[in-house]
Amino acid sequence: MVDIRHRIGVVTPDPTNVYDALTTIDGLSGWWTDETSGDPDVGGTIELRFPPVGGFDLEVLEQRPGERVRWRVLAGPDEWIGTTIDWQLRQDGDYTIVLFEHRGWREPVEFMSHCSTKWGSYLMSLKSLVETGTGAPAPRDVQISDWH
Amino acid sequence: MVDIRHRIGVVTPDPTNVYDALTTIDGLSGWWTDETSGDPDVGGTIELRFPPVGGFDLEVLEQRPGERVRWRVLAGPDEWIGTTIDWQLRQDGDYTIVLFEHRGWREPVEFMSHCSTKWGSYLMSLKSLVETGTGAPAPRDVQISDWH
Repeated sequence: MVDIRHRIGVVTPDPTNVYDALTTIDGLSGWWTDETSGDPDVGGTIELRFPPVGGFDLEVLEQRPGERVRWRVLAGPDEWIGTTIDWQLRQDGDYTIVLFEHRGWREPVEFMSHCSTKWGSYLMSLKSLVETGTGAPAPRDVQISDWH
Repeated sequence: MVDIRHRIGVVTPDPTNVYDALTTIDGLSGWWTDETSGDPDVGGTIELRFPPVGGFDLEVLEQRPGERVRWRVLAGPDEWIGTTIDWQLRQDGDYTIVLFEHRGWREPVEFMSHCSTKWGSYLMSLKSLVETGTGAPAPRDVQISDWH
């Protein structure tokens, strides 16, 4: 098993601002994809779509306000199914530190390398959303390659 | 051992354009840091500095024109020493595909997560340099957190 890991710092006085962007449909659609729907509470399923490519269904496993969010991938690309996505938040002075892990990839395939870079780009979109009110969700996301 | 992996696609007709940005002092200083010096040929040592934080010394292990570059970290942050940085290039239509691996981290420490995101940001700087002629090397690099 191999994992994707990232760390960003969001300039904001309270981790609740990042937490809200991970736990509400409005928040998720502000940095990840316009086409976000479903039930973002624990036990619910969030549906994210990236037309025309496809998308993901995520089960919400855990939410601790201002501290942690965990999802399990129920549907999406074959390599994603069963993987977990883990967000840990803490306040360090003026920054909310975001530790991100996309865990449980079976193999370090080229698509995983793509997703690693793409996650980094989406984390910068999350940072921008919380700091400025504007993120870069799909379809206005940053294109990193031929795989978008 | 754990690894950082990324993948980008650079819009350019020839992988030599990316290869040159990895194997010349001018190229490296165009996307990574203004303060790049040393001997970029196989067996040489490249010195990269990021004042006031520090920097890295890299031994050039391998260069295959348009295809591959490998470095070993000789000096820098303790977690980096002895790790290897591996670039594989190939042409897919209009894109030079760049597969990046920073291999051999002893532990998945928080600094590794930071470096993963920061590498993604520098890869986008490399893409921009080759596509537009302008990258975002230090000290004009994108700040991702309190750790810069």
